[in-house]
Amino acid sequence: MKKYNVGIIGYSWAAGAHIEAINQTSLAQVTAICSSRNLNSKEISAKHGGTIKCYTDLAEMLADPELHIISICSYPAEHAEQAIMAAKAGKHLIIEKPVALSWEDCLAVQSAVESAGVRTCVCFECRFSSQLETTKAIIDKGLLGKIHYGEVDYYHGVGPWYGQFRWNIKKEAAGSSLLSAGCHALDALLFLMGNDVESVHSLATYSANEDFAKYEYPTTSVSVLKFDGGRIGKVSSVIDCLQPYYFHIHLIGSEGSLLDNKFYSTQMGGLNKNKWSELSMKMLDSGDVSDHPYQKQFETFFQAIDENKEMPLTSLTDALHTHEVLFAADQSAEQNG
Amino acid sequence: MKKYNVGIIGYSWAAGAHIEAINQTSLAQVTAICSSRNLNSKEISAKHGGTIKCYTDLAEMLADPELHIISICSYPAEHAEQAIMAAKAGKHLIIEKPVALSWEDCLAVQSAVESAGVRTCVCFECRFSSQLETTKAIIDKGLLGKIHYGEVDYYHGVGPWYGQFRWNIKKEAAGSSLLSAGCHALDALLFLMGNDVESVHSLATYSANEDFAKYEYPTTSVSVLKFDGGRIGKVSSVIDCLQPYYFHIHLIGSEGSLLDNKFYSTQMGGLNKNKWSELSMKMLDSGDVSDHPYQKQFETFFQAIDENKEMPLTSLTDALHTHEVLFAADQSAEQNG
Amino acid sequence: MKKYNVGIIGYSWAAGAHIEAINQTSLAQVTAICSSRNLNSKEISAKHGGTIKCYTDLAEMLADPELHIISICSYPAEHAEQAIMAAKAGKHLIIEKPVALSWEDCLAVQSAVESAGVRTCVCFECRFSSQLETTKAIIDKGLLGKIHYGEVDYYHGVGPWYGQFRWNIKKEAAGSSLLSAGCHALDALLFLMGNDVESVHSLATYSANEDFAKYEYPTTSVSVLKFDGGRIGKVSSVIDCLQPYYFHIHLIGSEGSLLDNKFYSTQMGGLNKNKWSELSMKMLDSGDVSDHPYQKQFETFFQAIDENKEMPLTSLTDALHTHEVLFAADQSAEQNG
Amino acid sequence: MKKYNVGIIGYSWAAGAHIEAINQTSLAQVTAICSSRNLNSKEISAKHGGTIKCYTDLAEMLADPELHIISICSYPAEHAEQAIMAAKAGKHLIIEKPVALSWEDCLAVQSAVESAGVRTCVCFECRFSSQLETTKAIIDKGLLGKIHYGEVDYYHGVGPWYGQFRWNIKKEAAGSSLLSAGCHALDALLFLMGNDVESVHSLATYSANEDFAKYEYPTTSVSVLKFDGGRIGKVSSVIDCLQPYYFHIHLIGSEGSLLDNKFYSTQMGGLNKNKWSELSMKMLDSGDVSDHPYQKQFETFFQAIDENKEMPLTSLTDALHTHEVLFAADQSAEQNG
Amino acid sequence: MKKYNVGIIGYSWAAGAHIEAINQTSLAQVTAICSSRNLNSKEISAKHGGTIKCYTDLAEMLADPELHIISICSYPAEHAEQAIMAAKAGKHLIIEKPVALSWEDCLAVQSAVESAGVRTCVCFECRFSSQLETTKAIIDKGLLGKIHYGEVDYYHGVGPWYGQFRWNIKKEAAGSSLLSAGCHALDALLFLMGNDVESVHSLATYSANEDFAKYEYPTTSVSVLKFDGGRIGKVSSVIDCLQPYYFHIHLIGSEGSLLDNKFYSTQMGGLNKNKWSELSMKMLDSGDVSDHPYQKQFETFFQAIDENKEMPLTSLTDALHTHEVLFAADQSAEQNG
Amino acid sequence: MKKYNVGIIGYSWAAGAHIEAINQTSLAQVTAICSSRNLNSKEISAKHGGTIKCYTDLAEMLADPELHIISICSYPAEHAEQAIMAAKAGKHLIIEKPVALSWEDCLAVQSAVESAGVRTCVCFECRFSSQLETTKAIIDKGLLGKIHYGEVDYYHGVGPWYGQFRWNIKKEAAGSSLLSAGCHALDALLFLMGNDVESVHSLATYSANEDFAKYEYPTTSVSVLKFDGGRIGKVSSVIDCLQPYYFHIHLIGSEGSLLDNKFYSTQMGGLNKNKWSELSMKMLDSGDVSDHPYQKQFETFFQAIDENKEMPLTSLTDALHTHEVLFAADQSAEQNG
Repeated sequence: MKKYNVGIIGYSWAAGAHIEAINQTSLAQVTAICSSRNLNSKEISAKHGGTIKCYTDLAEMLADPELHIISICSYPAEHAEQAIMAAKAGKHLIIEKPVALSWEDCLAVQSAVESAGVRTCVCFECRFSSQLETTKAIIDKGLLGKIHYGEVDYYHGVGPWYGQFRWNIKKEAAGSSLLSAGCHALDALLFLMGNDVESVHSLATYSANEDFAKYEYPTTSVSVLKFDGGRIGKVSSVIDCLQPYYFHIHLIGSEGSLLDNKFYSTQMGGLNKNKWSELSMKMLDSGDVSDHPYQKQFETFFQAIDENKEMPLTSLTDALHTHEVLFAADQSAEQNG
Repeated sequence: MKKYNVGIIGYSWAAGAHIEAINQTSLAQVTAICSSRNLNSKEISAKHGGTIKCYTDLAEMLADPELHIISICSYPAEHAEQAIMAAKAGKHLIIEKPVALSWEDCLAVQSAVESAGVRTCVCFECRFSSQLETTKAIIDKGLLGKIHYGEVDYYHGVGPWYGQFRWNIKKEAAGSSLLSAGCHALDALLFLMGNDVESVHSLATYSANEDFAKYEYPTTSVSVLKFDGGRIGKVSSVIDCLQPYYFHIHLIGSEGSLLDNKFYSTQMGGLNKNKWSELSMKMLDSGDVSDHPYQKQFETFFQAIDENKEMPLTSLTDALHTHEVLFAADQSAEQNG
Repeated sequence: MKKYNVGIIGYSWAAGAHIEAINQTSLAQVTAICSSRNLNSKEISAKHGGTIKCYTDLAEMLADPELHIISICSYPAEHAEQAIMAAKAGKHLIIEKPVALSWEDCLAVQSAVESAGVRTCVCFECRFSSQLETTKAIIDKGLLGKIHYGEVDYYHGVGPWYGQFRWNIKKEAAGSSLLSAGCHALDALLFLMGNDVESVHSLATYSANEDFAKYEYPTTSVSVLKFDGGRIGKVSSVIDCLQPYYFHIHLIGSEGSLLDNKFYSTQMGGLNKNKWSELSMKMLDSGDVSDHPYQKQFETFFQAIDENKEMPLTSLTDALHTHEVLFAADQSAEQNG
Repeated sequence: MKKYNVGIIGYSWAAGAHIEAINQTSLAQVTAICSSRNLNSKEISAKHGGTIKCYTDLAEMLADPELHIISICSYPAEHAEQAIMAAKAGKHLIIEKPVALSWEDCLAVQSAVESAGVRTCVCFECRFSSQLETTKAIIDKGLLGKIHYGEVDYYHGVGPWYGQFRWNIKKEAAGSSLLSAGCHALDALLFLMGNDVESVHSLATYSANEDFAKYEYPTTSVSVLKFDGGRIGKVSSVIDCLQPYYFHIHLIGSEGSLLDNKFYSTQMGGLNKNKWSELSMKMLDSGDVSDHPYQKQFETFFQAIDENKEMPLTSLTDALHTHEVLFAADQSAEQNG
Repeated sequence: MKKYNVGIIGYSWAAGAHIEAINQTSLAQVTAICSSRNLNSKEISAKHGGTIKCYTDLAEMLADPELHIISICSYPAEHAEQAIMAAKAGKHLIIEKPVALSWEDCLAVQSAVESAGVRTCVCFECRFSSQLETTKAIIDKGLLGKIHYGEVDYYHGVGPWYGQFRWNIKKEAAGSSLLSAGCHALDALLFLMGNDVESVHSLATYSANEDFAKYEYPTTSVSVLKFDGGRIGKVSSVIDCLQPYYFHIHLIGSEGSLLDNKFYSTQMGGLNKNKWSELSMKMLDSGDVSDHPYQKQFETFFQAIDENKEMPLTSLTDALHTHEVLFAADQSAEQNG
Repeated sequence: MKKYNVGIIGYSWAAGAHIEAINQTSLAQVTAICSSRNLNSKEISAKHGGTIKCYTDLAEMLADPELHIISICSYPAEHAEQAIMAAKAGKHLIIEKPVALSWEDCLAVQSAVESAGVRTCVCFECRFSSQLETTKAIIDKGLLGKIHYGEVDYYHGVGPWYGQFRWNIKKEAAGSSLLSAGCHALDALLFLMGNDVESVHSLATYSANEDFAKYEYPTTSVSVLKFDGGRIGKVSSVIDCLQPYYFHIHLIGSEGSLLDNKFYSTQMGGLNKNKWSELSMKMLDSGDVSDHPYQKQFETFFQAIDENKEMPLTSLTDALHTHEVLFAADQSAEQNG
């Protein structure tokens, strides 16, 4: 047996990815699942390995002292309440994004976590991807100098062909284009440019395509952000496009630029300024959660718990910076609507 | 002798491109140049072909009844006054962008042109480029459906290595990042998405690079636009980057997307949605005016004069739509600064 | 249970592809197989899913009133007789190509089908491929104008390394290069240029390679076709080559050309005429039946049955146009031999 | 002074290419031109180098005993008569293709040449191109085994944008699609597969494009050829297409295939049969005569004269093989029209 | 049952590859395994197919008269002794490289094999790879002329992420960089340039990387070889690099060069000397034994046994040429250390 | 007039490149040439610009007090003596490589330069190329860690098609493969790995190609070098190959590798180790001196003179390190011959 036992809330698409990733880490395994559906423990255990106890009552699962960590993979609207319950039960928390559907609920989660003194990891797992790790290294090596303009955008058509489309189209379930998916782009922008956002201005709109007409909220939005010192950022969140998945990053700095997997830098000898150099890395080119770097994120989280220190990069504190800007953006879009 | 004689104002970098392009059309030739420098008619004629008379006094040149068309290639700050003088003298007008450095001056030019009943062509020549012609055809064929989000951006580092850098850094000479160069991107966005802009919000900033520190105005700006019906557009104008020239176009429509020379459309049988199809066209990949499609624009203009009809695509009326939004964007950036 | 039950004749390579594709449609499943081999129903059911009854006597299988559709995957020489039997039994028909090994037999099948009033689908499934769907859309959008010359060719070395080589080499079993495989290319040409063929002239030959010496008929043929209005077509059928599989399409029209996945059109703004644009699509680049678009074809067929209308694109009527030209080509080749 | 003096007949586009290429050889120079236009010897000499005497009367030029070789670059309809005159005058002959516009005239030229005992070089210069030299070497090394099927095609839109379009559209001036241009493809096929053609069958047609409507003869033709031993060839000649220039070669042999610059061979160890190997060579990808390998052809011709032996590859005898098939093809097309 | 039974010594990573490859040949199957671990015959048989008897005592296994061939996949230090035992038992031998860890032991194996009159196959299986087969064919066709300089190098970082790293780091277990892995490169050089090596000079060194610090011997070596007639060769063996796997081959001959999958030759008509032609072949681009061409090598070996003739390319005699040079190289490196 | 006047010795191919490059710098111009040929000052001045005085007597040219710098572009055998004369005359020195044909002569030059106190620049201009500048920056940024193995090689077929072939084939004129050309590769290796070479071992050989048979010295050599601390280097110099020009660089370090324009580094976040990243830079891919970065080198030299400091990268001191190893390598090759 590995050191930590994890209980999952919700038995969704994301949950499947969490279970597989958690079981592949060196420190933890999934031993409990709580779902509104009546799951068969035997079947579930056989499917995922180990022994997994299945619950329909969350309080019951949280009462198990052998469970050290709770991973929340339920519908977004349930995240906050469940996170607060689990924190109060003294469990460390993995929370699928978003943390909550309102800023008030986010603050409530934060408060519960602080009171309970538990560790947290919010699934902005893209920060652990090859693409963002390399991009961050390029910046940290000084190859781009000081960045004064940055764009990170999310283009991914989430139509009827997607499993979560069923509930993702509801406003009370998914919230907004940014909340339901584009938050990864906004989070990446803050990761790369800093959290010191001074203002945000957003616009949002709809596609004329019939498939996307089922959405109860605008499926495309664009936000421009002003950072401390006058630096500028921009995030588009487009879940109603018909094209290849595209996680677009363009950073303009005083010593060079980075565009997706390409860069130019004055700091690398005699590079050709008129033709991009190319970095070989695994791009964020899929919306499929099974392609996402969950395992690396969870391994890091379990190590942090083990060493009794704060989760790097994606703690609740990190994630709330992103959520605060996100809710401000959605509010701006509504006002400008 | 071809049918129309053209007099050039200013003997700049742009003027060189105008002269060559005009002389290659089927209907017109350059026969006069007015410059503050004392040019030698013989040398200038030998260099450009034909017989070119050189003036230092504009009124004198305009007094020549043999001149049918005036092309204004002087500093931007002089455009408006010279355009008004030439219109009053009954000359048809070619005006290098921008038309003027303020919206008031634009309106004054418009008024003079209307009074004089002369024809006009403003150098938003990119509308005649292979890239924009093909992009427009893709839209007109319905391959993208209805476009609800569009980005057109201008990335071109205009540093000390550029001839016009000398005066381009001055606020009263060049105006802003958009006015001095990025207007081509804004103009393209309106060309592709329509003129019915309802609001614009902009932010602007500076690079920390020493070379670009000489600019008296912010060299990077981003603007988000709201069009009639809630459609959204976005324009970045970046003249302080260190990277390959990039005229970025990304259009999201109800039936497909276009990204630079790539597209996907539901309207083309069984295209692969996960891999872009590629259009072979001449991209706008250079800030060098000698690469710009002036000749096609001028040929079209001379034909329009000959057929006594409005210049298509780049008449003063067309151009003023773009200027109006541009000045609104610059004002917004200043307020948000 | 889905709505329609399908019985398969023959348990060959093609049959395997049919069964898998039929079971993946929304309207039908395979419930019976008739083979000269004594198959075990239990094993077969376990392998393919559902409950499959196995017969060795065709009349017996056809007598089952629960069977609605018969799919003929036997040796080509048996197709016609079995199709007639099944039609007489009132079953709708899926027929693997070719329909028969002579034009007379084709007509007999047609007559039986018409008398019985059953629906038909002949496996020219390439018409449902991404490549041909997109190519047809390009034509239908007018991008090529009027096509006056078209080539569709089939290059696929069918040697001892291929399962069906064993019987494919026999003249009475496979017929000719066109009948055994190249008919897909001829069918595609008629699909793209029309059925109105006025004459055909063919030549056929053999490879000097030892492996291909086992063929009892010429393994390479070329045919030139004259269409109504003087348009010209050409089909090569080469099953004795040593090279990558190649389904070559080259169409010359009054407004552009298409070469495989590449095109140029005057109707798309300013495309570069000297460099092909490229369509991203799944090419017909394999002779493996498991790569062929059977499922889409069968889904369409079952929908057509359900709506009581003619199968689009690959009904017996459509297929007989191709067969008529094919037999004329083979006759011409023999005369010119 | 180099050893041989050449007189040019006609001062056309092709003549320009001949003059430049001849003057770059080691053995000859152009010293005379005969044109219907009154050319100025001084200007012409200055332009091309050396001393060039200009004539309007052919007999006069031919009377010059210092002239050793005559290059015929006039309109095709004049070739035969001029060749006969020059041969009678004892001059060696360079003849631009075609040799004549009828087979009878070809035979008359042959007869005159034989009587006079002069050397000949007909401009099927593509045989000296990197592409055909390499393709021939691939065959000669046995990499393709015995070729049983070969296609060589000529795709080149010769429209109003081409200088020779003016006269090329006339039937009596240019003859046919094959005669005016496609003969290079037919000649290449015979070069690669042999001269032993037993029969030819052709079809010809027109484009519906307005620009090409000016042609007095069918602008697209396809011919299938039967060679000794049953081998098959096919030549398309298309001068009314809108696409990149394409000299298409596809050879199918008993040990491999060659497609343009790609090949597979069983004779090269463990090459991958499913992916082409690629030859780096200068492709025939332009109809511009200045891109054609004239110099190598002429150098070879002058060496042959110098060594008093037959011109290799493109002697009149070689060329007449191609012409004989060509006229048979055109006759077939007319009969099948 | 196929004709030959094979017994495996050692149940390692390599053994797995041997078993799978042997069982896929047409002439032999694995029927016995001898391992220091107590293997369960039933499990092992189920895993690999057929009936496999498991031994822990080698003498016992060798006593089985039904076993015809022994494949030695144990630790390198055990190869020699086991080979001698098996030869004495009259078994034909497959020996994983290296044959032994000293030249003396190699000679002892050779002596035992000669006395016993058994057939041998040493696993320099790369000689049967697509890359080396094609490269050899290029040479044998004369495309490179006479080779006077050749480089074959092995770049493959064998760090903690590799299974065999555990024992590969020990000097007494693995010997040297060349012995443990780079011998494939040295063997390929001799295969391509001949066995007539006159002298070798080597240098060896270590990486400063912590992971590679665990090696007890130098992990990088370079050797220069002088062949008969003054020809030169060079082999680098680098198992401490951080980069993609690279089996580098560069051959310089009197008529051309080959660089990996690229070549130029004067013997192929008019190839472009300034741009490489490219061969499509399966490159040696992985250190994973399951990617190696064992099956082809073993099929060849079993055929040789069946026809009672010497194994081509990789007999013990062939392999000892390589080993002799290898030990000389390692000795030279030590002297120069 | 710019500040420094330069006199050129020799009017060769290299001289042409020097003159053009010197005249394009900001600080110097060519004002004198000394050649054994009687040059016409007027013509030479017209050709190169400015006023150039032509000499046949070196002493006379050196006597001109207006000349500040001498650039030695004569035959290699004359370099040393002329350099000593010029140094004694108090001129700063540009010396084409090699400095001399023996180490003794190198030392004599060094001694003269030290006595005279003049500044020196030896034409190892590749150190100023985009490729080597970027490669050095990669190393200096620590991206490769500590380099323990490096290869730099020179592949360039110098045959009869090359101007300098005439004298390059003579041993007393050109010396050796390394001296005549490959020294650029050796110099680059020392630039990248340091000057602390402890030993060198070389082999040399000849091509069997007829064209290269005219060389009086071995045209291919390979050298292995041992650096301080046991690091290893290797240089091939091949001037008798038939292939594209190739300046091959492969560096193996403790944190990554660089291969030509490709690299992998553990220091750049999550780069893919199995696929190279690519640097966009101007490669050393031509032996043509007009492609070499002379201008940058000379500009740097004139600045160094102006600031009265040592020339960076290519001073005589730097160059002599390379020459010392080079002569040792040639001596080793001779001993091992």
